[in-house]
Amino acid sequence: FAPLLKRTEITSAISFPLIVRGDILGVLNISRTAEDVFFSESDKEMLGIICGQAALALENVRSLEMAKKTTRMRTLFEQYVAPEVAEILLAGDANIMGLGEIKKATVLFADIRNFTSLVQHLELSDLRMFLNEFFQVFTDTIFQHSGTVDKFMGDAVLAVFGAPVQLENASRAAVRTALLLRERFEALRSRWAEHVENFQTVDLGIAVTSGRMYIGNVGSNRRLDYTVIGTPVNIAQRLAAESSQCRIYVTAPVREAVCGDIPTEDVGNLLLRGVEQRVKVFSV
Amino acid sequence: FAPLLKRTEITSAISFPLIVRGDILGVLNISRTAEDVFFSESDKEMLGIICGQAALALENVRSLEMAKKTTRMRTLFEQYVAPEVAEILLAGDANIMGLGEIKKATVLFADIRNFTSLVQHLELSDLRMFLNEFFQVFTDTIFQHSGTVDKFMGDAVLAVFGAPVQLENASRAAVRTALLLRERFEALRSRWAEHVENFQTVDLGIAVTSGRMYIGNVGSNRRLDYTVIGTPVNIAQRLAAESSQCRIYVTAPVREAVCGDIPTEDVGNLLLRGVEQRVKVFSV
Repeated sequence: FAPLLKRTEITSAISFPLIVRGDILGVLNISRTAEDVFFSESDKEMLGIICGQAALALENVRSLEMAKKTTRMRTLFEQYVAPEVAEILLAGDANIMGLGEIKKATVLFADIRNFTSLVQHLELSDLRMFLNEFFQVFTDTIFQHSGTVDKFMGDAVLAVFGAPVQLENASRAAVRTALLLRERFEALRSRWAEHVENFQTVDLGIAVTSGRMYIGNVGSNRRLDYTVIGTPVNIAQRLAAESSQCRIYVTAPVREAVCGDIPTEDVGNLLLRGVEQRVKVFSV
Repeated sequence: FAPLLKRTEITSAISFPLIVRGDILGVLNISRTAEDVFFSESDKEMLGIICGQAALALENVRSLEMAKKTTRMRTLFEQYVAPEVAEILLAGDANIMGLGEIKKATVLFADIRNFTSLVQHLELSDLRMFLNEFFQVFTDTIFQHSGTVDKFMGDAVLAVFGAPVQLENASRAAVRTALLLRERFEALRSRWAEHVENFQTVDLGIAVTSGRMYIGNVGSNRRLDYTVIGTPVNIAQRLAAESSQCRIYVTAPVREAVCGDIPTEDVGNLLLRGVEQRVKVFSV
């Protein structure tokens, strides 16, 4: 108010706080410079009404903006942690780090073979465009079969079936996802190979495993990850690295779950780095 | 109202909507069953005042709950995508998928060696407890040096220095982080080794690389990841897999940036899977 008080031409002034529910949103100042004309009681009354309306209007805008911000944040959150995970996290109580359980689930691991050398020949902007198309195909296909996209890791994707969303036959859903992924990836790859030669040597490794794993939050209070951990996850990653020519590798429990629907071929007992016992593997 | 209308003992009734800013939050019904006593005009007036107050109180609670929800979501969002990334994403406009840039940055990749075999001997609950302690040590150390935790991947961590948070010497910050991580990891490992024998063979591989990379959103409109992609990231991952006995591997540009502060040793030109040219490597 200090600068206003210094202005000697002001003969009459009135200040009205804009109050909504006890919060002062602002103050409305009205000054008159005409000589001998002062604010009357009825002016004050009318201004009181106007300020009440103005404060309410301001509050409405504030409320609306907050609602918009909340909606936007929710949308973003769902994009970054998966919608079904967002729901669990937002419903959870204060003990967010304890959120998780040990249960049987199926994981699908897919990674692009020969991708590191491809990256060296691609412009970063092209690389990013390709990865966006790749991830679009993958998320669409995984969502279509009610799986959850756990993570993208460079050229790899980890998806979970049967948790947190319950599925009648999680392994069947995962193998059907794998079959469709293989087909759609090949279409994507050959389209890119028309323009960039290096895409001819690119291949997709896919593996599906199932078993008991921990699914839930891992991390620290400053940085969390809702993910899956356990031997089946490690085996899926190693198997995807072993598979080639777009063969889908599955373990015995997965084969058992899908056998009636999808024919499989015996690949043998593979020795995987870090895994002590040989793993019985089938290909689809 | 239908059930109320059927109750013949009601002689006089009054309904008041609870309105705040045009929204009807609810309706207050008051009925009288005493004979010959009806609601008067003054009753109506008083109820009007009470309902106005009640509606305001309800709205206050709603507002407060929304504010609490927004705050909680923001906290969660920051935990899952890193605080500095959350800030960028929330400030961004509608074109969220386009958010990103190509720039020079430093990455640190660390993964636990012999972890897959360790997982097979650990209870899932112990595994989770160990990973939580591991991630706690890592995030604390990375945050301490103004780095961003990009991702946890099972037993591995990817951190970025110099983007999105600008740093004067990103490589120096990353190497100092690596040195402290090595020390803290060894303390954690030997503590666990006292109880679980398999922790004796566990080791940490760390690599620091720098160069031009894409940093920003990758993914589809249904699932996004704010991450880094490019050859330096792939090299860091491969180098971490090569390093052992807790040696920290760094590339030539990183060595150049830290040379005055931290002594390095020439490891030679390594041939890394998928990387065409041999990479000049130094150890710290």
